[in-house]
Amino acid sequence: MQYMAENKLETMRHSCAHLVAAAVQELYPKAKFGVGPVVENGFYYDIDFHEPIGEADLGKIEEKAKELAKKGATFVREEIDIDEAIKLFKKLKQDYKVDLLQDLKKHGTTKLNSEEDVATAGDVSVVSLYKTEKFVDLCRGPHVGSAEEIGAFKLNKLAGAYWRGKSENPQLQRIYGVCFEKQAELDDYLKMLEEAEKRDHRKIGQDQHLFFVDDMVGKGLVMWMPNGMIIRNEIEKLAVEMENKAGYLRVATPHLAKAELYKTSGHLPYYKDSMYPPMVMDDGVYYLKAMNCPHHHLIYKHQMRSYRDLPLRLAEYGTVYRNELSGTLAGLLRVRCLTMNDAHMYCTKEQIKDEFKNVMELTMKYFEIFGLKDYWFRLSKWSPEHLDKYINEPDNWKFSEGVIREVLQSMKVNFVEADNEAAFYGPKVDVQFKSIVGREETMSTIQLDFAAKGRFGLAYIDETGKENNEVFVIHRAPLSTHERFTAFLIEHFAGAWPVWLSPVQVLLAPVSAKHVEGAQALTKELLEAGIRVEIDSADETVGNKVRKGVERKIPYIVVVGDKELGGEDWMIRVRGQKDQIKMEKSGFLGKVMEEIKSRKS
Amino acid sequence: MQYMAENKLETMRHSCAHLVAAAVQELYPKAKFGVGPVVENGFYYDIDFHEPIGEADLGKIEEKAKELAKKGATFVREEIDIDEAIKLFKKLKQDYKVDLLQDLKKHGTTKLNSEEDVATAGDVSVVSLYKTEKFVDLCRGPHVGSAEEIGAFKLNKLAGAYWRGKSENPQLQRIYGVCFEKQAELDDYLKMLEEAEKRDHRKIGQDQHLFFVDDMVGKGLVMWMPNGMIIRNEIEKLAVEMENKAGYLRVATPHLAKAELYKTSGHLPYYKDSMYPPMVMDDGVYYLKAMNCPHHHLIYKHQMRSYRDLPLRLAEYGTVYRNELSGTLAGLLRVRCLTMNDAHMYCTKEQIKDEFKNVMELTMKYFEIFGLKDYWFRLSKWSPEHLDKYINEPDNWKFSEGVIREVLQSMKVNFVEADNEAAFYGPKVDVQFKSIVGREETMSTIQLDFAAKGRFGLAYIDETGKENNEVFVIHRAPLSTHERFTAFLIEHFAGAWPVWLSPVQVLLAPVSAKHVEGAQALTKELLEAGIRVEIDSADETVGNKVRKGVERKIPYIVVVGDKELGGEDWMIRVRGQKDQIKMEKSGFLGKVMEEIKSRKS
Repeated sequence: MQYMAENKLETMRHSCAHLVAAAVQELYPKAKFGVGPVVENGFYYDIDFHEPIGEADLGKIEEKAKELAKKGATFVREEIDIDEAIKLFKKLKQDYKVDLLQDLKKHGTTKLNSEEDVATAGDVSVVSLYKTEKFVDLCRGPHVGSAEEIGAFKLNKLAGAYWRGKSENPQLQRIYGVCFEKQAELDDYLKMLEEAEKRDHRKIGQDQHLFFVDDMVGKGLVMWMPNGMIIRNEIEKLAVEMENKAGYLRVATPHLAKAELYKTSGHLPYYKDSMYPPMVMDDGVYYLKAMNCPHHHLIYKHQMRSYRDLPLRLAEYGTVYRNELSGTLAGLLRVRCLTMNDAHMYCTKEQIKDEFKNVMELTMKYFEIFGLKDYWFRLSKWSPEHLDKYINEPDNWKFSEGVIREVLQSMKVNFVEADNEAAFYGPKVDVQFKSIVGREETMSTIQLDFAAKGRFGLAYIDETGKENNEVFVIHRAPLSTHERFTAFLIEHFAGAWPVWLSPVQVLLAPVSAKHVEGAQALTKELLEAGIRVEIDSADETVGNKVRKGVERKIPYIVVVGDKELGGEDWMIRVRGQKDQIKMEKSGFLGKVMEEIKSRKS
Repeated sequence: MQYMAENKLETMRHSCAHLVAAAVQELYPKAKFGVGPVVENGFYYDIDFHEPIGEADLGKIEEKAKELAKKGATFVREEIDIDEAIKLFKKLKQDYKVDLLQDLKKHGTTKLNSEEDVATAGDVSVVSLYKTEKFVDLCRGPHVGSAEEIGAFKLNKLAGAYWRGKSENPQLQRIYGVCFEKQAELDDYLKMLEEAEKRDHRKIGQDQHLFFVDDMVGKGLVMWMPNGMIIRNEIEKLAVEMENKAGYLRVATPHLAKAELYKTSGHLPYYKDSMYPPMVMDDGVYYLKAMNCPHHHLIYKHQMRSYRDLPLRLAEYGTVYRNELSGTLAGLLRVRCLTMNDAHMYCTKEQIKDEFKNVMELTMKYFEIFGLKDYWFRLSKWSPEHLDKYINEPDNWKFSEGVIREVLQSMKVNFVEADNEAAFYGPKVDVQFKSIVGREETMSTIQLDFAAKGRFGLAYIDETGKENNEVFVIHRAPLSTHERFTAFLIEHFAGAWPVWLSPVQVLLAPVSAKHVEGAQALTKELLEAGIRVEIDSADETVGNKVRKGVERKIPYIVVVGDKELGGEDWMIRVRGQKDQIKMEKSGFLGKVMEEIKSRKS
């Protein structure tokens, strides 16, 4: 049933693309059409307008399309000989369609890349056309019968696109449209888009001076500015504090290693394409880190371990590098250099259960502190039918999947199970999140690893004095990568950071120049109390200062005038509250300090 | 006068090498001699003993040499024709000397590398020989008249050395000797050597599990183990705490950048040989960081700065990379990857004085906390006669050297001035240290930089609303590199870390198995009080546990038995004190907590 519905929606969106093209043809008779496929939530159409149009023109086109729909424009299929079709489109001066047809004739397909969804009608000697008003398109179909069947739609974006995605070809304009069955669905979607845009981590990151990417440093390499670094340090402080208490030991390892290490770990040659290029030095070939685990395994191995040392938990704010294509890099979500609060637990088979549970509890505690609730777990298991994908230790698989299931059940958490989704080296638990704008993503994973012991020869001396090779490793980075988690938090809080994370916690706005000195003395007092305070001593009205502070989403704003400096109660503007609160200075400082200390979310 | 004395000492040491060779010839008639130059504090002689000798044989040789000295062995010079000399050494079966003479005849020199200090007598047709007892050496001299003039000496090391330093040549044995005018000087020097050996940072680093270097990761790349990381984190915490108070803003920048950045900074091409090899990616050429400053300059530039923002102080625990030859890498003193508590101050010309003073004061405060006193400053200035070495801004040089001198004078610190020792881009203050074993080294520098503003176009909007390009930068890393500073501290404390830095602060030694559980409860209590505690629950006598704790230089050791668990006073073994102290548990915990908090050195 769902398939049918989706199929229908797709047909509707495809027809909508044709309808929009028909509208364009009426309004811009010189327009030449490229391709117009369906995409998520809608469609686009690439068009050469002869004279480029602007965003403002989209409304006009949309109106015309709606007009055509209202009067019941139809989609009429016709099959003709391919040479006839070429002749027809030549006559219509539709060069791009001719281009497609010639390709179709020559290669049996028009696909040059996955976006070009114009495929053959099965037999390359005959093609199908669809006509809507005066607009004729080369198209496999299917379509709705009448444009009245198209639901609610909106043209919402104009972008540039090279013909067939190649920069040596002419640049067309791409009209994006969204289309849903019902107006209410469209409204919801547009509202969500608007919300997502307001919460865009790149925009807020720039507005709040959190981070930037600089062309001289390189794409995908994040530069953390002081405000962003405050957030990063607060998160790191939290992690170190909690993990110290949980018996983790912190280490630091270099950002590179010799090829030998990555041969041992198995990253070379299998993962080579994702790694930065090698650096040849006088004593061998070096690579930037692909993962932190191989380095940690060497620390484990550096001393002979005893059963008394297990579980051994090595943690590091480690940085790894991925050689992503530069064109795919964007904001904090696709980067080339990722820092994460990583850790590896080395334990015996008997310790897996407790250790896994500890990690689960710690993970959930983190999310609780950040006020994140909309998540669930997925137990990703192996498949004995796919032995090429999994290490062949059936007893360990059975045992550890059972143990992890027990943990999940005993904790009464919301979880699903998925076959054939494990890592090569063992089962894992994926933490699935639903973001505030409805996007589902895997935030982090907790992985069990049977392979490391063999590859690295991990061992310990057991109670009887014998060497035992059954060392299991748990990999975990509950806070995802710092880059990804920050993007998520920016979006989640829409830049309105909880007090403990907020780069500026209190803004002092002196009423006039004569109050600046007094405000500076207060600033010092707040700083000494461990409160991040800023004073706006610009030569502006206090109203302006407050307005700017509100725009910056600073948790507390205090106007500093004669009364405040004279020891009277303070009037405090609390973010998100309409009415100011009245408090004694010391009471207010105590309140802020307590919120910082308790990491109130 | 000093030169004369050094010259005399050198002659004496050289004669001592001959004396030792004469002793070897008496004891090992088949020995063949290589070269025997003077080195710092003594000399060595490379000898082919026919049958290799052991360290134990050095005493015997030393004794024989002293015997020869006592009976007044002489050094008699003789000049002979080079061909006669070749004949003579052939007869004596001294193949290496023949080799040297043949080289001398052919090339006019015997020098193949700087260590081979046997040079010609000026005219290659005639060479000079020196005879001591039966030993004849090819030697330019000069020598003392009689071996009685040789002061106090000791043969202290035996090592292997290839003839002429080439691995394809035969391997000889190298006898090292130290030699001073007076016995007291020799004793002092040997004591210092012994002390240095006990304090060797590599040995203590290994014993205390602080760090290691692994062949699979690569030479010069330090792996910090949990204990080393505790020290690193404590130092970082101190720096962040003090610098937050001093108005520094923390940032984080990637460990790499595009070639463009290093062209702008001037590192490429001038510094290229010291940099790691380039990595060619799909969007350009990348290099690992050579310095942190270029990245910080980009952060400065990312926003338009106002005079209100200055001085702007950007700080980072930044990591830089140096492509040193692998053969030169050793311990923490020669590494390829260096992490430092780096910072850059951006200020106006008028602010240089205060800012420089702030940095000086902070630097001295750091050293005070670590209990380091044996240091002084050096003001390194430019030279107008060497304009090729310095940026040509005479007014800025004059002004800033004057300002820095004023700062040094006003602070009444111990300083010297040195011409023609500045950086290319401005004057600097070097912090010179005398290590506990008497070695002088530059720990860190504070540098003023006029060049960055031009290279990076650093500017700010001044009080009148105009753009001003006169932005001065101060570079500083008062705690040196973390690697170097840790090596220094290990040596300084000989592994007996002050409580706040000590990886383990308190060791609990349960008397027997039945006290382990009680000790574990105490462990938890101490951990919660923020004290790093370890429990030795091994199946050994408590005496053994205490002995091991003392060897590990743990500040406090507490034996946990019936009395301690029963609430009676604790007997506490304090590192370096003979008698135990008696204290209530709560009093002891308070004492340790206070020492941690105050960073008692």
